[in-house]
Amino acid sequence: MKVILLAAGRSQRMKPIEDKNFLKFLGKPLVQHQLEQLISVGLRDFVIVGGEHNLARLEELAQMLLNDESVDSIEVVEQKDLDDGMAGAMMSIEPVVKSGPMFVVSANDVVESKAFEMLMDAKGDGDVDGILIAKEMKEYFPGGYLNVKDGLIESIVEKPGAGNEPSNMVNIVLHYFAEAKDLFDALHKVESEKDDRYEVGLDSLFKAGKKFKALPYDGFWQAVKYPWHVLALKEHFLGKIRDTFPAQRIGGWEADIALTAVIKGDVILEEGVKVFDHATIIGPAYIGKNSIVATNAVVRGSMIGDNCVVGYATEVARSYWGDSVWTHSNYIGDSILGNNVSFGAGTVTGNLRFDEGNIPVNIKGEKMDSGRNKFGLISGNHVRSGVNTSFMPGVKIGTNVCIGAGIVIGEDIEDNKFVTGKFELKQYDNKVDVAAINREELKKKLS
Amino acid sequence: MKVILLAAGRSQRMKPIEDKNFLKFLGKPLVQHQLEQLISVGLRDFVIVGGEHNLARLEELAQMLLNDESVDSIEVVEQKDLDDGMAGAMMSIEPVVKSGPMFVVSANDVVESKAFEMLMDAKGDGDVDGILIAKEMKEYFPGGYLNVKDGLIESIVEKPGAGNEPSNMVNIVLHYFAEAKDLFDALHKVESEKDDRYEVGLDSLFKAGKKFKALPYDGFWQAVKYPWHVLALKEHFLGKIRDTFPAQRIGGWEADIALTAVIKGDVILEEGVKVFDHATIIGPAYIGKNSIVATNAVVRGSMIGDNCVVGYATEVARSYWGDSVWTHSNYIGDSILGNNVSFGAGTVTGNLRFDEGNIPVNIKGEKMDSGRNKFGLISGNHVRSGVNTSFMPGVKIGTNVCIGAGIVIGEDIEDNKFVTGKFELKQYDNKVDVAAINREELKKKLS
Amino acid sequence: MKVILLAAGRSQRMKPIEDKNFLKFLGKPLVQHQLEQLISVGLRDFVIVGGEHNLARLEELAQMLLNDESVDSIEVVEQKDLDDGMAGAMMSIEPVVKSGPMFVVSANDVVESKAFEMLMDAKGDGDVDGILIAKEMKEYFPGGYLNVKDGLIESIVEKPGAGNEPSNMVNIVLHYFAEAKDLFDALHKVESEKDDRYEVGLDSLFKAGKKFKALPYDGFWQAVKYPWHVLALKEHFLGKIRDTFPAQRIGGWEADIALTAVIKGDVILEEGVKVFDHATIIGPAYIGKNSIVATNAVVRGSMIGDNCVVGYATEVARSYWGDSVWTHSNYIGDSILGNNVSFGAGTVTGNLRFDEGNIPVNIKGEKMDSGRNKFGLISGNHVRSGVNTSFMPGVKIGTNVCIGAGIVIGEDIEDNKFVTGKFELKQYDNKVDVAAINREELKKKLS
Repeated sequence: MKVILLAAGRSQRMKPIEDKNFLKFLGKPLVQHQLEQLISVGLRDFVIVGGEHNLARLEELAQMLLNDESVDSIEVVEQKDLDDGMAGAMMSIEPVVKSGPMFVVSANDVVESKAFEMLMDAKGDGDVDGILIAKEMKEYFPGGYLNVKDGLIESIVEKPGAGNEPSNMVNIVLHYFAEAKDLFDALHKVESEKDDRYEVGLDSLFKAGKKFKALPYDGFWQAVKYPWHVLALKEHFLGKIRDTFPAQRIGGWEADIALTAVIKGDVILEEGVKVFDHATIIGPAYIGKNSIVATNAVVRGSMIGDNCVVGYATEVARSYWGDSVWTHSNYIGDSILGNNVSFGAGTVTGNLRFDEGNIPVNIKGEKMDSGRNKFGLISGNHVRSGVNTSFMPGVKIGTNVCIGAGIVIGEDIEDNKFVTGKFELKQYDNKVDVAAINREELKKKLS
Repeated sequence: MKVILLAAGRSQRMKPIEDKNFLKFLGKPLVQHQLEQLISVGLRDFVIVGGEHNLARLEELAQMLLNDESVDSIEVVEQKDLDDGMAGAMMSIEPVVKSGPMFVVSANDVVESKAFEMLMDAKGDGDVDGILIAKEMKEYFPGGYLNVKDGLIESIVEKPGAGNEPSNMVNIVLHYFAEAKDLFDALHKVESEKDDRYEVGLDSLFKAGKKFKALPYDGFWQAVKYPWHVLALKEHFLGKIRDTFPAQRIGGWEADIALTAVIKGDVILEEGVKVFDHATIIGPAYIGKNSIVATNAVVRGSMIGDNCVVGYATEVARSYWGDSVWTHSNYIGDSILGNNVSFGAGTVTGNLRFDEGNIPVNIKGEKMDSGRNKFGLISGNHVRSGVNTSFMPGVKIGTNVCIGAGIVIGEDIEDNKFVTGKFELKQYDNKVDVAAINREELKKKLS
Repeated sequence: MKVILLAAGRSQRMKPIEDKNFLKFLGKPLVQHQLEQLISVGLRDFVIVGGEHNLARLEELAQMLLNDESVDSIEVVEQKDLDDGMAGAMMSIEPVVKSGPMFVVSANDVVESKAFEMLMDAKGDGDVDGILIAKEMKEYFPGGYLNVKDGLIESIVEKPGAGNEPSNMVNIVLHYFAEAKDLFDALHKVESEKDDRYEVGLDSLFKAGKKFKALPYDGFWQAVKYPWHVLALKEHFLGKIRDTFPAQRIGGWEADIALTAVIKGDVILEEGVKVFDHATIIGPAYIGKNSIVATNAVVRGSMIGDNCVVGYATEVARSYWGDSVWTHSNYIGDSILGNNVSFGAGTVTGNLRFDEGNIPVNIKGEKMDSGRNKFGLISGNHVRSGVNTSFMPGVKIGTNVCIGAGIVIGEDIEDNKFVTGKFELKQYDNKVDVAAINREELKKKLS
């Protein structure tokens, strides 16, 4: 069976976060996590669909994974027209896959291995034309619900509205086809101009009497669509530290840790990490290669990339950092920072509204509810701020941006901007006799 | 003998601090401290005068104290017309007290037990109609001075001016009457419309030849009138930690203290307190129930209420906090914060003028000298500030106020306001090639 | 041989730093370091040239050093007309020195003892009329290059431009004359009105066939001309801690150090220093008498004067402080602070440009490259700032200046100014129901 991993998405709604498939968690790109998880359940043949923007990186990753004895083949295929969505992805792989069993998996549906194991067990029965792993929902979710009769899928109902769900099963992209050709043929016949051609083709198979079974899955599932999903994934992967790493890496491995530093809970310190005096790391937390957690800094519930400096007196709480992020006397709470980001001393991310309601974020011109009442800054790559600057909750800073000192950023900043405030100083003659001030008395009281 | 505790004051000059009688010190309302102190010297019968605004709380307190075997009776009496001052209070209790010996004590004159003990000793002699405990003053104080001749009070001289004092004894409200009826009768005859009817009545007793003795008292005395008096009381009660608490509560009792936390001096940690790593508490200090002193925080010379969070990298110096105060990377110096107050990271209270002179405070429209050269913020209940905001020394923030990020508050803010700054950003094309910057050299220097 | 130490310079380009000769390093004025270094190589007779502004201090210093057995004589001579430069200095000492061998040394050329030792060795040969110690340069430097032929100096070429250097030897003021009268006579003949009379006179000696040898010196050399040179000298003297102090002063000597404080590397704590809990001092560092390094503060690579308070949660990195500097929750990086300087909580010095290029500084109206890409604030004596204020890299603050809260100082501030920002607040009715907010859930998550 060939596994088709769909990884061509351009992350438009994730902006300013670049190429979501290569966001690193616990030191590995998301797409690598996905592949390794598939390999771990016994799958051996892969076709990865990429786009022009990430083809080279996918090929590099494929080469690396081919060294693994458990892998037989990995091919990387380019989807030229990315507007063509999943149907376009299928057209791109048709010449490679041609026929036979196929398992279509989206790199942007993150699930537990259990989901794949369920499929491996079920497909063995050989009595169906396909299987869809469906996420069991406890509350209404605006997705496609499976309409099932006598154990077989009759249709997918898109966003039926709360109370009108035909089942509690929502379609996620874990689709098994006993014969790939069935899908290819169906897609060739679809005439829709819209981006739902894959779904229409799939539906036509149901209508044509093909037997598709729904497998309800009640484990972890996270789409990767909006910036705040990065925080959800960070939490997910931090929760897996104990499974992922051998015990001896928990609590420091080849790292240089000051005697007065405190490290508690499940913490990974990668090679070359330094933890300075009076620093505190409260797990779950991950600190990437050669990063420094400096004097008096605190990291908790966070994932820090490689070559970062969590500078003096910085607190990083529940945040995700890319590589080469530098801070200094900052508070970074519930925030997502890209690569090569640096903040001046005293710069702070607000992460809570006065009314403590959910933080909205602008997505393609529209305010969306992030579903989080603690949510800070979303920063792209190559960003700088001056000292004592304040970022309001849910603000997005584009790529290659410099932001001046002492200002409040309450709106999104586009790529390639240099932003300052308007300051005016008033100068008078100084009437205070500063030279006459003596603090001997004040000093005595210090203890 | 009946003790009349006057606790009906409405705290108008204390604004935005609510109901001064119920401000908590060392976990107990001020009025409870007063009552317990009176009980401790052997007094057993009490009449508390309250107002509509605090009657329920006074009654609750009375019920609780009645469980004490040392107490025979506590009655709570409402004074309807609070504009009627002390004379009104006397009229309210007349039907209850009727006649017999009576000791009138203001809940807003805080003294040491010694003052009460002095009275207990002196009244036993039975040779006078009344006794006034008078505070011995070393410097002029704008109060009522006792004019004493042959051991008996002839009159009270209000604010005589420095150099004109008839004695060094200032009238505070600790007045013993061998026969309460004397006072009631005198007050009925006073025709003044002003709020000095009590004083006029008292004076008429002197004039009528009643024998009133003055007992000079040289111990601690603090009126409770202006916001800065809260700091004086905080200091007073912190100084009593060793007397008030059993030794084992000094330095932590049923509290959860990190190994790297430092606690020095006389410190009370109430039940459920947590002290995180690298936190420092320097006594005298009191931390109320279920409060958290978080990583790297410092508390010194301060009183923290219940359910507070002294957040990461916050310093609280010489301050008074109510319940449910949350901070985060703040400096709170010489400040008074009400209940349910929360500050964004980087918000700071200025507590020293450039000229290091005394800090003035607006009281009912007039600038008053607080007598303190270190004095910070006075915040009411239900207050929020955003990140990186600055409060100037002596500023008052009303109840139910939200204050935006990155601004300087140099004026008092009234109740129920939402305050922001006026910010304008200037945006240009970014000419800095941020992506080209490499910090390998800088990083090597960190240690 | 008489040593002539030139110490009359008025530090105009050093502004706002006062009297550079008396800047203290490791607790001693720079000019004392120079004298002691000269004494240490066996020199015993000194004439110090001062100006009106520092004559008293020089005389006091001379008296003190005369107690040293290794010193035979120290005379302090006033140079009246300071505009007259080095020639004027020579005219001032002529009546005192009259004739005989003389070694002219500038107090503002800081070198290693090796340079003086080289001279002591070389002059012994007695075969020359003079010796100039010349600094060997690896890269072009805009100074006076020695043009040497057959081992003798023919001329000094001022700023020849890169590639046109007649040698790699640059003239610094370490000039030995076998007979002082030669120089005095030559100077009397110079008719130049410009400030190069000394150089012209010296050149006339070369031209007249006097034999002047150049001694190439490849050790440390630092001029003391621009503010940033203070940082270079700070680094130089910190590097000499091990040579200068007996071992037992490294790591604390008669100092009061909290158990949880961390002190690493070469650190001098002078008498009366206190180091509070969780403070960190990373050497090389010097902390002057009676200074306090408070809770959670960090000092690294810095020189702190006497009676300073490195307040709670302050980081001082690679900086130079005079006496009586007070901070509190500040970041002071790569900065030079004079005496009696105090910053409000949250005030921060920016020390890095967005482009990480060298920081320019205004010197007498012209932007000069400091040669440093990390460079913070230059503050004169008697300076105050309010809370949350930001100083941009390379800014200079004059003497006796107060700077308000919450502003960004991006320009130099002249002496005797009081500076504030222009703030406007917008006030609305508060629509947030702050009283209704309960944080029980948030609190549970804290750990």
